Amino acid sequence: MIVYGRNPVREALRAGRRPVTHVWATRRAAGEPWLRDVAVSDARPEAIEARCGSAAHQGICAEVGPYPYAGAAELLAAADPLIVALDELEDPQNVGAICRTAESVGATGVVLPERRSAEVTPAVCKASAGAVEHLRIARVRNLADFLGDAKRAGCWCYGAAAEGAEPYDRQDYAGGVVLVLGAEGKGLRRRVAASCDVLVALPMMGRVGSLNVSAAAAALLYEILQRRLDRES
Amino acid sequence: MIVYGRNPVREALRAGRRPVTHVWATRRAAGEPWLRDVAVSDARPEAIEARCGSAAHQGICAEVGPYPYAGAAELLAAADPLIVALDELEDPQNVGAICRTAESVGATGVVLPERRSAEVTPAVCKASAGAVEHLRIARVRNLADFLGDAKRAGCWCYGAAAEGAEPYDRQDYAGGVVLVLGAEGKGLRRRVAASCDVLVALPMMGRVGSLNVSAAAAALLYEILQRRLDRES
Repeated sequence: MIVYGRNPVREALRAGRRPVTHVWATRRAAGEPWLRDVAVSDARPEAIEARCGSAAHQGICAEVGPYPYAGAAELLAAADPLIVALDELEDPQNVGAICRTAESVGATGVVLPERRSAEVTPAVCKASAGAVEHLRIARVRNLADFLGDAKRAGCWCYGAAAEGAEPYDRQDYAGGVVLVLGAEGKGLRRRVAASCDVLVALPMMGRVGSLNVSAAAAALLYEILQRRLDRES
Repeated sequence: MIVYGRNPVREALRAGRRPVTHVWATRRAAGEPWLRDVAVSDARPEAIEARCGSAAHQGICAEVGPYPYAGAAELLAAADPLIVALDELEDPQNVGAICRTAESVGATGVVLPERRSAEVTPAVCKASAGAVEHLRIARVRNLADFLGDAKRAGCWCYGAAAEGAEPYDRQDYAGGVVLVLGAEGKGLRRRVAASCDVLVALPMMGRVGSLNVSAAAAALLYEILQRRLDRES
């Protein structure tokens, strides 16, 4: 896989979870201090763009091993895990942005369905600013079945919903937590919503009446983190 | 100005704040129920793309009047305003996403500097899902001077910062509030940071150590909204 952009290449090197077999950079990008001990092939911007297929490469790309997915059971085995589950999110921009926020709140990991969902592509790596290199991400065949497993493992499953939901700030968020987010416009699929313990909503005070899913994820994940930190202190 | 995409065209029509002088749509997009009473010119996708200059048009674009900017003084004249000020954010994706979240929390408005900042372009309209049509957005010559005016008008100015900042959840957020956000990577300029009453930070529990500015905006704005709602109830 070819990852591109400063943060994705830097975090792949820092995390060391998958081999970085070749780095191409413009002379300017190659001067970055974190590339000091790395063998870099000199390349022109057009050659980098041709190699990675995106204009957003910032003068650098790298050949790396396949993304090292985690197992869903491994995430559930953590003590009081905080897991983010994405129900058929197809936009790599949103999936990457949510992974970046999940990594920032110290989440145990992210769960993606195998079908009708973005996987960890180079575009997701870029949108996550390389956070996917440090985060554990698992793929599951069926998200509703995963939520069943999570409940049996002692987790409480909170689904983000617009309607028929309880206020997000009146929840406990203690112990094992799974936050389930649906695709924009579509929301959670019925069987996935039915597999949640509770549906929670953010207040909507405007006229447009919907948030971008990655903005909703940030508001919800920071509320969850804050509740958990308050309990510890 | 040509706005493109379903939400931007629909919200321009709904808000009615600027003239919508012509709508072009594919036969499929023209069948949307909210276009029932609107004169629509039939157009092929390629013609729409050529007209708006973006592939993200979703089969529809419209010619609209210039964006109706508000005055900064008008925002400060509101009772206990909640204002979001953006310090030299150039990425239309981030500016649009923050405007969408600001509209969702019922913010009084958004303030952008005239220079080195995205203005309300068609790309910003699209990234905001049309929320800019309902939101009041003002442009100011100098952001630090605006913060001085805001303080004289009784507002408390909170700057989002990574370092040297206080916990964001230990603040009051009562009365008039200005939340100031800086560009990713650069943060707030020194004079802008010095013009804030307090700098606040979100906890960072991961290894990457930075959030996307629109994710930070969502976490901060929902915390501010929740504090204000809790106080009212």
